Amino acid sequence: MSARLINALATTGPLAELFSDGCVLQAMLDFEVALARAEARAGVIPQTAADAIASAARPDAFNTAKLAHDTFRAGTPGIPFAKALTEVVRSKDASAAGFVHWGATSQDVADTALVLLLKRAQPILTEDLTRCERSLERLSEQYKETTMLGRTLLQAGPPVTFGLKAAGWLGAIRRGAERLDAAFESALVLQFGGANGTLASLGENGPAVAQALADELGLQLPEAPWHTQRDRLASLVCSCGVLTGSLGKMARDISLLMQKEVAEAAEPGGDGRGGSSSMPHKQNPIACSLALAAAHRIPGLVASFLSTMVQEHERAVGGWQAEWPIVSQIIQATGVATASMAEVAEGISVNPERMRANIEATSGTIFAERAATLLAAKLGRNRAQELVKDAVRKSNKERRHLTEVLAEMPEVASHMDSETLRELEVPEKYLGSADGFRKALLVNRKRSGKKER
Amino acid sequence: MSARLINALATTGPLAELFSDGCVLQAMLDFEVALARAEARAGVIPQTAADAIASAARPDAFNTAKLAHDTFRAGTPGIPFAKALTEVVRSKDASAAGFVHWGATSQDVADTALVLLLKRAQPILTEDLTRCERSLERLSEQYKETTMLGRTLLQAGPPVTFGLKAAGWLGAIRRGAERLDAAFESALVLQFGGANGTLASLGENGPAVAQALADELGLQLPEAPWHTQRDRLASLVCSCGVLTGSLGKMARDISLLMQKEVAEAAEPGGDGRGGSSSMPHKQNPIACSLALAAAHRIPGLVASFLSTMVQEHERAVGGWQAEWPIVSQIIQATGVATASMAEVAEGISVNPERMRANIEATSGTIFAERAATLLAAKLGRNRAQELVKDAVRKSNKERRHLTEVLAEMPEVASHMDSETLRELEVPEKYLGSADGFRKALLVNRKRSGKKER
Amino acid sequence: MSARLINALATTGPLAELFSDGCVLQAMLDFEVALARAEARAGVIPQTAADAIASAARPDAFNTAKLAHDTFRAGTPGIPFAKALTEVVRSKDASAAGFVHWGATSQDVADTALVLLLKRAQPILTEDLTRCERSLERLSEQYKETTMLGRTLLQAGPPVTFGLKAAGWLGAIRRGAERLDAAFESALVLQFGGANGTLASLGENGPAVAQALADELGLQLPEAPWHTQRDRLASLVCSCGVLTGSLGKMARDISLLMQKEVAEAAEPGGDGRGGSSSMPHKQNPIACSLALAAAHRIPGLVASFLSTMVQEHERAVGGWQAEWPIVSQIIQATGVATASMAEVAEGISVNPERMRANIEATSGTIFAERAATLLAAKLGRNRAQELVKDAVRKSNKERRHLTEVLAEMPEVASHMDSETLRELEVPEKYLGSADGFRKALLVNRKRSGKKER
Amino acid sequence: MSARLINALATTGPLAELFSDGCVLQAMLDFEVALARAEARAGVIPQTAADAIASAARPDAFNTAKLAHDTFRAGTPGIPFAKALTEVVRSKDASAAGFVHWGATSQDVADTALVLLLKRAQPILTEDLTRCERSLERLSEQYKETTMLGRTLLQAGPPVTFGLKAAGWLGAIRRGAERLDAAFESALVLQFGGANGTLASLGENGPAVAQALADELGLQLPEAPWHTQRDRLASLVCSCGVLTGSLGKMARDISLLMQKEVAEAAEPGGDGRGGSSSMPHKQNPIACSLALAAAHRIPGLVASFLSTMVQEHERAVGGWQAEWPIVSQIIQATGVATASMAEVAEGISVNPERMRANIEATSGTIFAERAATLLAAKLGRNRAQELVKDAVRKSNKERRHLTEVLAEMPEVASHMDSETLRELEVPEKYLGSADGFRKALLVNRKRSGKKER
Repeated sequence: MSARLINALATTGPLAELFSDGCVLQAMLDFEVALARAEARAGVIPQTAADAIASAARPDAFNTAKLAHDTFRAGTPGIPFAKALTEVVRSKDASAAGFVHWGATSQDVADTALVLLLKRAQPILTEDLTRCERSLERLSEQYKETTMLGRTLLQAGPPVTFGLKAAGWLGAIRRGAERLDAAFESALVLQFGGANGTLASLGENGPAVAQALADELGLQLPEAPWHTQRDRLASLVCSCGVLTGSLGKMARDISLLMQKEVAEAAEPGGDGRGGSSSMPHKQNPIACSLALAAAHRIPGLVASFLSTMVQEHERAVGGWQAEWPIVSQIIQATGVATASMAEVAEGISVNPERMRANIEATSGTIFAERAATLLAAKLGRNRAQELVKDAVRKSNKERRHLTEVLAEMPEVASHMDSETLRELEVPEKYLGSADGFRKALLVNRKRSGKKER
Repeated sequence: MSARLINALATTGPLAELFSDGCVLQAMLDFEVALARAEARAGVIPQTAADAIASAARPDAFNTAKLAHDTFRAGTPGIPFAKALTEVVRSKDASAAGFVHWGATSQDVADTALVLLLKRAQPILTEDLTRCERSLERLSEQYKETTMLGRTLLQAGPPVTFGLKAAGWLGAIRRGAERLDAAFESALVLQFGGANGTLASLGENGPAVAQALADELGLQLPEAPWHTQRDRLASLVCSCGVLTGSLGKMARDISLLMQKEVAEAAEPGGDGRGGSSSMPHKQNPIACSLALAAAHRIPGLVASFLSTMVQEHERAVGGWQAEWPIVSQIIQATGVATASMAEVAEGISVNPERMRANIEATSGTIFAERAATLLAAKLGRNRAQELVKDAVRKSNKERRHLTEVLAEMPEVASHMDSETLRELEVPEKYLGSADGFRKALLVNRKRSGKKER
Repeated sequence: MSARLINALATTGPLAELFSDGCVLQAMLDFEVALARAEARAGVIPQTAADAIASAARPDAFNTAKLAHDTFRAGTPGIPFAKALTEVVRSKDASAAGFVHWGATSQDVADTALVLLLKRAQPILTEDLTRCERSLERLSEQYKETTMLGRTLLQAGPPVTFGLKAAGWLGAIRRGAERLDAAFESALVLQFGGANGTLASLGENGPAVAQALADELGLQLPEAPWHTQRDRLASLVCSCGVLTGSLGKMARDISLLMQKEVAEAAEPGGDGRGGSSSMPHKQNPIACSLALAAAHRIPGLVASFLSTMVQEHERAVGGWQAEWPIVSQIIQATGVATASMAEVAEGISVNPERMRANIEATSGTIFAERAATLLAAKLGRNRAQELVKDAVRKSNKERRHLTEVLAEMPEVASHMDSETLRELEVPEKYLGSADGFRKALLVNRKRSGKKER
Repeated sequence: MSARLINALATTGPLAELFSDGCVLQAMLDFEVALARAEARAGVIPQTAADAIASAARPDAFNTAKLAHDTFRAGTPGIPFAKALTEVVRSKDASAAGFVHWGATSQDVADTALVLLLKRAQPILTEDLTRCERSLERLSEQYKETTMLGRTLLQAGPPVTFGLKAAGWLGAIRRGAERLDAAFESALVLQFGGANGTLASLGENGPAVAQALADELGLQLPEAPWHTQRDRLASLVCSCGVLTGSLGKMARDISLLMQKEVAEAAEPGGDGRGGSSSMPHKQNPIACSLALAAAHRIPGLVASFLSTMVQEHERAVGGWQAEWPIVSQIIQATGVATASMAEVAEGISVNPERMRANIEATSGTIFAERAATLLAAKLGRNRAQELVKDAVRKSNKERRHLTEVLAEMPEVASHMDSETLRELEVPEKYLGSADGFRKALLVNRKRSGKKER
C-alpha cells in the first residue's frame, strides 16, 4: 500500500527508494547481522549463531505490512522486528535464535538503522549540491559582466550583475553544504546502549562489542549512547533547514525573473516540465515551485523535531516516537530542493537583452542615488537630494530619461559636466564592488577545496 | 515502493489506506467522471462521451509509479493524470478522449480529490472521537467520588476526583471535536474554476456545470473557486492541531499516572501493546506515547500549512505544491492521537487504592491551604500562613501528619476544634465545586446532543 | 526599560499600549477588585475589605520593574503581584490585607488578566478588519469591469477582473474575521478555580462567587476552570494565524502588482511610508512588507502555542509559562497585518491602463486556451491543441498577435469565422463567471450582515 | 511604554537590557560613528565631519518612542534613525550633517546593529553555560557511584548512576555550546553593501571603507554583503534551538525527579523561587518550568526564522522585516533556559537515599532482564524469558522480591547459584559501562579544553 501520489512532490526517486520499506528493513537487518558478528568476535555469542543470523537475515523473509502494523501496536519498530527476525532464524537454526538482538534494545536497532539510512542519503544530497554549485560557479563567470536591475522590496534599484547574483546564491548554498557535511559527520554515530543505556547485560564486554559493531557498520562510536540526547540529529535537520532556505531564496528569485513582465531568466523545460493542462503557451517555474514548496514545509518540520528533543530520562515517551517521519521528510524535502535547483542551475536560460531593456525602461531613475551622491559633493546632501527628487518626479511624469531632465536643470548643469551626465545612466559605470564581491564569493569556494565532494 | 515502516507510528490502518495511491487515484477519477456527467447534463459535452469516460475510468488502468514520477516532473498531479486518463479513454473511444477534463484545470482535480479524501476521513476520526468521548463520560461517572491528588507543576496539591479529571479531558476533546466538525463542514467544498478561476472556457455554462458537479460529488458549492484562498483548509488543519493538543494533554496525564512511583492508572495492554524487548516486567504507555508523538509533530505541520497560505495571484508557485503531504500527515497524526486515546479511554485501569495511598503519603501537607484558610478567619491570613508553614515544615521533618502537628500548637488548637482538625485531612471534605464542575462539563455534552455523530 | 525599537515592526500603537506594563497591571488589578467585590456580595469577605481593596488597587502604587523581576523569580506574575497588592492594601487598611486574592490561585489572576486584555484587543482588530472589508467591497464594485491578467505560477494567463481579485481577498478576510469573532466569543471566559481547580477553599460559595466575578468583569462563566485545558486560547491564536495568512496573500499579490515591471497597483504612500534611504525614486510596498512579515512570524508562533497545550495535570510545568509572550505576539502580529492591509485597501491606487497594457503585451497568447477550446469543438481537442501550440510558438517568435497568426493558418481559418477571430483577444469576452463569482462573494458578505461589527 | 510584565518569563535581566531601546539605539549609533571614522580614514568624507558625527551621536539626543513609531511607518529602523541622526548632527555642525550614513543603506545599519547586539549576547550566554557545565561536571563526579532507577517511557528499568545522568546532560549541553560558539563566530560579520549590495556610491573606495568599518566595530568582514542571504543568522538561531532543546531535556528530567512520589532531586529554592500563592507546602520546579517554557517557544521561533529566509532579490519584502523580534526572542529564550539550568545545576539537591529506596520499591523486578540474560545462557532465551516473566508476575502479585520468587523456582535454582541470586538485585553489580560512558563524556569535555570560555 504505497502513498507515492500524495507525496509525489515531496520526494525524489532516489530518496523515496532510500526510505522505502525494503531499505528500512535492510538497515535494521544490517544492524542485527553486524551486532551478531561483533558479539561473536568478542566471544559473547557463538560464531555459529552469528553465521546463522547473517545467513537468515534476508528482507524477503519478512512481511513488511505486518511489520508496520506490529510496529504501530508496539510503539517501536525494534520489538516486532527483533521478534520476527528471531522466528526467521529459528526456522533455520533454533539454537541461534536465542542470540538474535543480544544485549540490544529496540531503540538501538531503530536509531542505528536511521543513521545508516542517513549515511546513504548524504552522497545523494551531495551529488546534487555539487552539480548546483558547479553550475552556479560557471554562471557567475559567464555572466560576470551582464548587468541587470538590482531589486529591493521588489522595486527597481541600481544595477548589479547576474554574475554577482549567482555568486550570492552560490555562497549561501556552499556554506549550507558545508554545515550539512559537518552535521552529517557528527550525526553518523552508532546507537548501542541496551535497555537503559549502560550495556549492562553485556557485563564487561560492552565497549568491545560496541567498537566492533561500529566498525562493522562503518559508523563512528560516540562517547556514550544517546537514546534521549538528540542534539546531533537536531543539528542535522537544522542544517537541512538552513540549506533549503537558501535554495528557496534562489528559487524565489528565479521564479520572479521568469515572470512574463520581467522575462530575464527561465528555468529549463523538458522531461515533463513546465506545461499547463489548460494553457499551452505557458512555461511554468516547476522546479522552482518544488524547491519553494520544500522551503515552505521544512521550517515546520524542523520545529517539530526541536520540540521532540525534550525527552524523558533514559528513553522518551512521545518525543522519540515522533522522529522517523520528521527526519525522513526533512531529508526528502532537502533532496527535492537540491535536485530542483541543481536542474535549474544547469539549465537556466539567461536573457541579457531583456535585463538591459528592463534597466532602460526605468529611464535612468535607478541612478538617482548616483546623481545625488555626485551632486552632494558640490551642493550638500540635502540640496542634492531635493534636486534629484524633483528630477525623478519630472522624469516619471514626462517619461523622459533622468539625464535629460537633469541636464535641463541649471543648478545641476553647473555642477555636473556633460561627460558625467552622459555616463550617469551607464550601468557598467555604477557597479562599485560588484565584481570584487563576486570574486571573493567564488575564491572562497575554491579555497575550501573539498575535492572529494 | 511503500514507505509504511518509516511512517508506521504516524498513521493508522484506515487512514494509511485512505491516502494510499489507490484511493488518491480513485478520488481523481471520481472528479473526472462526475465532471463529464455534469457537463453532459448541461449539454456541454455529449452524453456518450461522459459514458465512455465513466466506463474507462478504472484505477487498474493506471501505472501509479509512473504517475507519481510524472507528477513530480509536472509539479502537479493533475496534468499527468488528465493525460493518462485521456489515453485510457482514447484506447476505448477515441471521440470521447477529447472531452476528458473539459474546462477544468489541473488544480481543480487535485483540490477536489483532496476534499473527497477529507470527506472520507471525517467519519473515521468521528468514530474514534465518539468512542473516546463516551468512555470518558462513563469514567467520569464511575469515578466521580474517587479522590486523588491534584497536582500542580508536578507537585502534590489538594485533592480532586478522577471523575473531574476525566470530565476535564472530555470537555476539551468534545470542544475540539465540535470545532473539527465545523471546520470539515466548511472545507468540504468543490474546487472548480478552470485555468484562472473564471470558468471562462465554459462560457455561460460555468454555474450549471459547477452545481451539477458539486451535486454529483456530494460536496457544497462555494461562492467562488478558491485556488489561492486556502483559509478553509487552514482552519481544518488548525482544528486538528487544537484537538490533538487536547488529546496529547490527556496522554501526558495518563503517562504520568502510569509511572511506577505513582501507579494510579494504566493504559490497557494486549494486541502487541506495552511490552519491552529487553525488560519483560514493563508495561509501557504505548498508546499515550503515540498520541504524544502526534502532539509533537502536529504544531510544526500546522505552521507549515499556515506558511503556505501566502499564495500568489490566481495560482501559487510553491505554497500550493506543499499542501498534500502536510494535510495528509496532519489528518493521519490526528487519527493516531484519536484512535490511541479512544483505546486508552476504553481500557484504562484505574487504581483508587493507590490514589488514596498517594494522598495519604503527603501526611496531610496538601491540606495546608485548608488549614490556613480556616485559621485565617480567626487569626488573619498572615499569622495563619505563618503557623501553617511552621506546621508543614515540622510535619515534613518529623514525618508526622499535619493534623497531629497542628493539634500540638496552642495557637491553633485554641481556634480549631477537634472535629475540624479530624476532618482536615479527609479528602472528600475538601473537594469544593469539583462535582459541580464535573457535572457541568458532562451536561454540556448532553445538551450539545449531536446524536448523528 | 522599553523594547519598542527591536519590536517596532511587530506591533501597532494601540496594541503595544494594550500589552504594556500599565495595562497588564490594570487587568490584574481589575481581577482582584472584582474578586473582592464578588466575595463581599457572597458574604465570603467583609464589604469593608472589598472597598479597601478597591480603593487601594491603583497601578501607580506598584513598581513594575520589580514586579517583572519578581515574576521571573516566582515563575508566575500572580504570586508577586498578589503579595505586592496585599502590602499596598495593608498600608491603608491592615484588616483588609488578609482578604486580598482570597480563594484564588496565581493562575486565576494571570489567565483572567490575559482574557481581559484579549477582550480589549478584539475591537481594535475588528475596527481595522471592518475598514479593510469595506474598502475591498468598494474596490470590487469600482473595478468590476477592469480586466487584468490572470496569473498562475507567476505566469500570464487568461484575464480576470480586479473586482474579482478584490472580492477574493474580501471573501477570505471576511471568513477569517468571522472565525476570529467566534474564537473570541469562546475564549473570553473567566478563569477561577483556586489552588487545584475545585475552588475548595471557598467551600459552598464557589459557584456564587464565580458567577458574581464573571459578571463584574463582563466575562462568560465557563463550565469549569481551564487551567490546563487551553483549547479555547489555542483556537483563538489559530484563527489569528489563518486570518493573517489571508492578509499575507493579499499583501503578496499587491507587492507583486507594485513591481516596476508590472505597475498595476500601488499601496498608498504618505506619513513616512514608502521611501528609501538611498534611493529617492522608490515607492516601496511598506505596508505589504509588514503584513508579510506578520504572516512569516505567525505560523511559528501558532506552532509554539499548540506545542504548549500538552499541560500536566491540574497546572503545567512549562507549557503555561510559555503562553503570555506567544499570545501577545500573535495578537500584535495580527494587528499589524490587519492595520496594514486596511491602510492598503483604503488607499490603493489601481492602474487600469497598465493592466490593459500588460494584457496587450502578451500578444494574445493568453487566449490560446480559448482558441483551442473553440477549435476543439470542430477538430477534436488533440488537433486543436497542436494547431494552437504552433500558433503560440509562431506568435512568440515573430512577436505578432496570436489572432494574426491563427488567421493565416488555413485549417484554423476554415473553422473559425472572422468575427470569432476578432473577438478572440478581447478580454471582456473571456471572463466566464468572473462577475458571478464576484457578486456571490459580495452577496455573502451582505447576507452575513453583522451590522454590529 | 515598557512590556516587561507580559514578557517577564521570556527574558533575563541582562538580555532584556541588551535588547532595550537604549542598547539598540547605541548599536545603531556605533555603526554610524564607525562608518564616519572609516570613511574619513579612507578619505571619503572629511575627518571634521567624522568627528562631528562622533561627538553628536549620543543616545539621549533621540526620542525612542518617536523613533519606534517612525520605524513602523518606514518599515525599517534605518531610515528614520539616519534622518534623526542627521538632524542631531545638523544642529551641531551643519556641514557634517550631509555625511551621516554616507554610502550606507538602511539595512546596513539595522543588520550591523543586530550583529553588534549578538556579539554582546555571546558572553552572557557563555557565562551561564560555563557555570552549568562546571556544575554538571562536579555533580557527575560527586554522584558517580550513586545508583538510581533507569527510566524508559517513564517506567522503571535497570539502574544507572546519577553521575551518568549528569554526564549525559553535560555532553549534550557542551556540544550545544560548541555549536553555538561556532555559529556566533560565523554570524558576527559586518553588513555593509549600500543601496543594492555593491557599494556603488563609494566607487573604488568600497573595500577600504568596509575593511576599516569592520575593524572599527571588531567584526569580521564577510566575502560580500548578505542582505538577502541570511543563512549565518539562521544557523545561529538553529544552534540556540538545539541547545535549548538539550537544556529542556535536563529540565524535564529534574522536574520529573522532583515529583513528590519520586523525590530524588530538587532544584534550589530561595530568592523568590519555588513558592505557591495558595499552597505553602510546595516546592515548585520554577527554574525548570522556565527552561521548559523556553524549549516550548523556541522551535516555533526557529521555524519562523527559517521561513523568512526566502528573501527576494537584493532586499526582501517581508522576510527581513520579520527578523528582529524573532532573533531577539530566540536569544532571550536561550538565555532564560541557560541561566535557569545553570542555577539548577549549581544548587540542585540530590537524594541518594530516596534513589535507593525507589530501586528497592521495585522488588527487584527491574533486574528481570539481568535474570533472563543469566538464565538464557543455560536455558536458551525463550525459556529464560518465560520463567522470568512468570517470576515477575508472581513478584508483583505477592509483593515479594524477584530474587525470592526465582529462588523458589526449581528450574531457576538449578541454573543459578545462590551467590548469583544474592547479587541479582544489587544495583552496583548491574551498571555495565555506565562509568565508562560517564568518563568518556567528561574526558571529551576536558579534551576540548576551551579554557577561554
